[in-house]
Amino acid sequence: MANQTDLQPAPSKSDRSNLIPFSSRLRDGRALALDVWTIFSAANLPADCINLGQGYMNFAPPKWITDAAEEALNTVAPNHYSHPRGRIRLREALKVFYSPQLNRDLDVESEILVTSGANEGQYSVFTAFLENGDEVIMFEPFFDQYLPSVTFNGGRPVYVPLHPPKDTITHPTSNDWTIDVEELRRAVTPKTKMIIVNTPHNPVGKVFTKSELESIAAIAEEFNLLVMADEVYDCLVFDGKEHVRIANLPGMWDRTVTVGSAGKSFAATGWRIGWLIAPKSIIQPTLAASTRIVFCTNSPLQEAAASGLEQAKERNFFETQNEEYAERRAILCDAFDKLGLKYTLPEGSYFILLDISGVDFPLDYPFPESVLGRGRDFRACWFIANEIGVSSIPVSEFYCEEHANIGEAYGRFAFCKDTDTLRAAAERLTALKKYLK
Amino acid sequence: MANQTDLQPAPSKSDRSNLIPFSSRLRDGRALALDVWTIFSAANLPADCINLGQGYMNFAPPKWITDAAEEALNTVAPNHYSHPRGRIRLREALKVFYSPQLNRDLDVESEILVTSGANEGQYSVFTAFLENGDEVIMFEPFFDQYLPSVTFNGGRPVYVPLHPPKDTITHPTSNDWTIDVEELRRAVTPKTKMIIVNTPHNPVGKVFTKSELESIAAIAEEFNLLVMADEVYDCLVFDGKEHVRIANLPGMWDRTVTVGSAGKSFAATGWRIGWLIAPKSIIQPTLAASTRIVFCTNSPLQEAAASGLEQAKERNFFETQNEEYAERRAILCDAFDKLGLKYTLPEGSYFILLDISGVDFPLDYPFPESVLGRGRDFRACWFIANEIGVSSIPVSEFYCEEHANIGEAYGRFAFCKDTDTLRAAAERLTALKKYLK
Ligand SMILES: Cc1ncc(COP(=O)(O)O)c(C=O)c1O
Ligand SMILES: Cc1ncc(COP(=O)(O)O)c(C=O)c1O
Repeated sequence: MANQTDLQPAPSKSDRSNLIPFSSRLRDGRALALDVWTIFSAANLPADCINLGQGYMNFAPPKWITDAAEEALNTVAPNHYSHPRGRIRLREALKVFYSPQLNRDLDVESEILVTSGANEGQYSVFTAFLENGDEVIMFEPFFDQYLPSVTFNGGRPVYVPLHPPKDTITHPTSNDWTIDVEELRRAVTPKTKMIIVNTPHNPVGKVFTKSELESIAAIAEEFNLLVMADEVYDCLVFDGKEHVRIANLPGMWDRTVTVGSAGKSFAATGWRIGWLIAPKSIIQPTLAASTRIVFCTNSPLQEAAASGLEQAKERNFFETQNEEYAERRAILCDAFDKLGLKYTLPEGSYFILLDISGVDFPLDYPFPESVLGRGRDFRACWFIANEIGVSSIPVSEFYCEEHANIGEAYGRFAFCKDTDTLRAAAERLTALKKYLK
Repeated sequence: MANQTDLQPAPSKSDRSNLIPFSSRLRDGRALALDVWTIFSAANLPADCINLGQGYMNFAPPKWITDAAEEALNTVAPNHYSHPRGRIRLREALKVFYSPQLNRDLDVESEILVTSGANEGQYSVFTAFLENGDEVIMFEPFFDQYLPSVTFNGGRPVYVPLHPPKDTITHPTSNDWTIDVEELRRAVTPKTKMIIVNTPHNPVGKVFTKSELESIAAIAEEFNLLVMADEVYDCLVFDGKEHVRIANLPGMWDRTVTVGSAGKSFAATGWRIGWLIAPKSIIQPTLAASTRIVFCTNSPLQEAAASGLEQAKERNFFETQNEEYAERRAILCDAFDKLGLKYTLPEGSYFILLDISGVDFPLDYPFPESVLGRGRDFRACWFIANEIGVSSIPVSEFYCEEHANIGEAYGRFAFCKDTDTLRAAAERLTALKKYLK
């Protein structure tokens, strides 16, 4: 694996600046480790492998949204710096979209911040609020960026598990992944500063219930914690399930920052447009951080995202999109059902966790070093990608080292792909039958 | 000034999360201070004021470049996540552009990193290399983002002045702003990690000479320092002046990261496309930082920047653009000459420092609080903006507090505006005559 050496600094004669050491902050948080995305990148897999690993779409955003980007490119101002808070058109569109959902008249000047993807927004919150040694609670499995984003800013991640569905459940849904409120409470220390609540959840697909969120909110109130509500999949919720916003619970607005992403909402992950909705006391320090980190977010695609939000309602866009995603989900679920494999039916997001503990790959399969050094799920997913031709992501990557074994039972399959691709993947997956215990 | 209170956190009953303190890192580096950009933003100035303050263009990037963005928007992949290193097309274009200038065959996999504007690239270098307490030397006046970008990452800025032209020089150029090498040497301590060399320089317009860069290089070598060569204005150099890249001096490649910006090169400051060129030992940790900070840079505009670089040569783009900027510069210089005001003729970048120490504004002019609390240049620039209708930026903002008085003699006028606008500004500036001592 060419990529592996690539990530381990190797001193060389011709490269004397190796003498200039990089920051110790890179030593934490897996920052220089060979990550799952590199190991399972298209470049390392068979050329014709169907990619259900990475969470991006293989279709373009709607034409009526990209049109607004083209219009922006053909005028002057939207080719130049935006206000660090974001372009006013996008902030106005966000106000119209979120105000009714949050039961308040959002102020575009102080309660909405446009960021360079949800990712940079979240990073900026950590920069703005974490003191060295502050603890940030996250539920496991967790979106893998959280870990280094927290440690780079001097924070310490603290993990609280989502408990997998009981074995007795034959057709588990993401609702069968549960939190133990007492476990959460025990994780709080005097150093705890923040809880991250990701709903709908990557990779589980869980849409937290109102009562779960109320328990979390009570703890946040009791210990005066900031809540980062990572709701980037808020527009992708199925089966009539209600997406509850924790910011909306009594007393929670003041301590909650809600995170959104045009990438997820409009099938445009590469536009790097995200946003934060929060009270001024949270937005203001975060703006100060974001202004230094990126100065501002790209302008033409802010105009496009604004146009998407402006027109979504009249076009019934999110409803239609949800139906499309539900259809995509069904194609994969059918395939898993036919194989008799257990999976978690997701109520939100675009991921399915497949139980791969029964996949019986040959022990002498030619696994690369990078995969051999990791959990059983790395081998199972590698085998499925190379032998069956469908790639997925091993879920132990979304756990801390101590708990990685819980994740080893699962592969994450993304269904943010067109139906032809998903049908082809389903077809290929039938060949997995002969490798099942 | 509505904006002022906006930046001072004020606890309020309804805003209980004020109880959650922001990070102490925001207390350094002017992060929460009312900055010059806010004070002199269009919103705070008369509606018809001609904006020569902010350094962005009032014209669009060339159509043949934006065309490539439109094409990207109409395909699938360039609407989705790019590799954190940047899109291969842009990295290839950067390789073709920079390899001959750096006399080496750049490796697109390990020596080129696309970033979300030069700004995020520079921030990522600080994140990747600074240890708490590390010192970063910068020449004063400095691009104001450096200060908080360094302190946010635990670094300590150390200032070495560019000495202003001697009073005896009647027509100073940016070359008359000089460094004192012994002063630089004295600024180095065991804690020094990095020197920032910004050439062409904002706001002075100085294009560092080969011999100046050799002196700096010698010190970097002697004390094993990283050099950040901020060359975002590398395509904007006038009068046949040679832009020397410090990375090109003997022994310097290994310890230098060269910074570039599509925003400056292609009149597209709002695209947020920048790049770093450096050896693998510098790119690798910086990639690890940038991947966590933004994950990746927006994709459609990377395609456009690539197209710009690909076609620039055959279209004679940079030569033509330089002639256009030279013409723009001349319009302002003529106006200053007619007023008999001294200014620094810039050899590069798109800024002119005007000596405003002779502007005799009425002491009882109704200055806002935000301006009264600052140097004389804030009042002079405020007066010129409000009374003459041409905005500029007071230069004391680009100095540390101890040395702010040096900057008080100057206003920075940006000439990245179309000739009509600059002619209108020149016309208005004639009215300044009656306020000169
Ligand atoms: C849970 C979660 N949060 C945040 C992000 C980042 O979103 P963006 O692409 O807008 O930076 C992702 C992307 O995969 C995600 O899954
Ligand atoms: C000296 C200098 N460096 C870096 C930058 C940032 O460039 P970008 O807009 O690509 O982030 C600027 C922008 O004004 C600048 O003047």
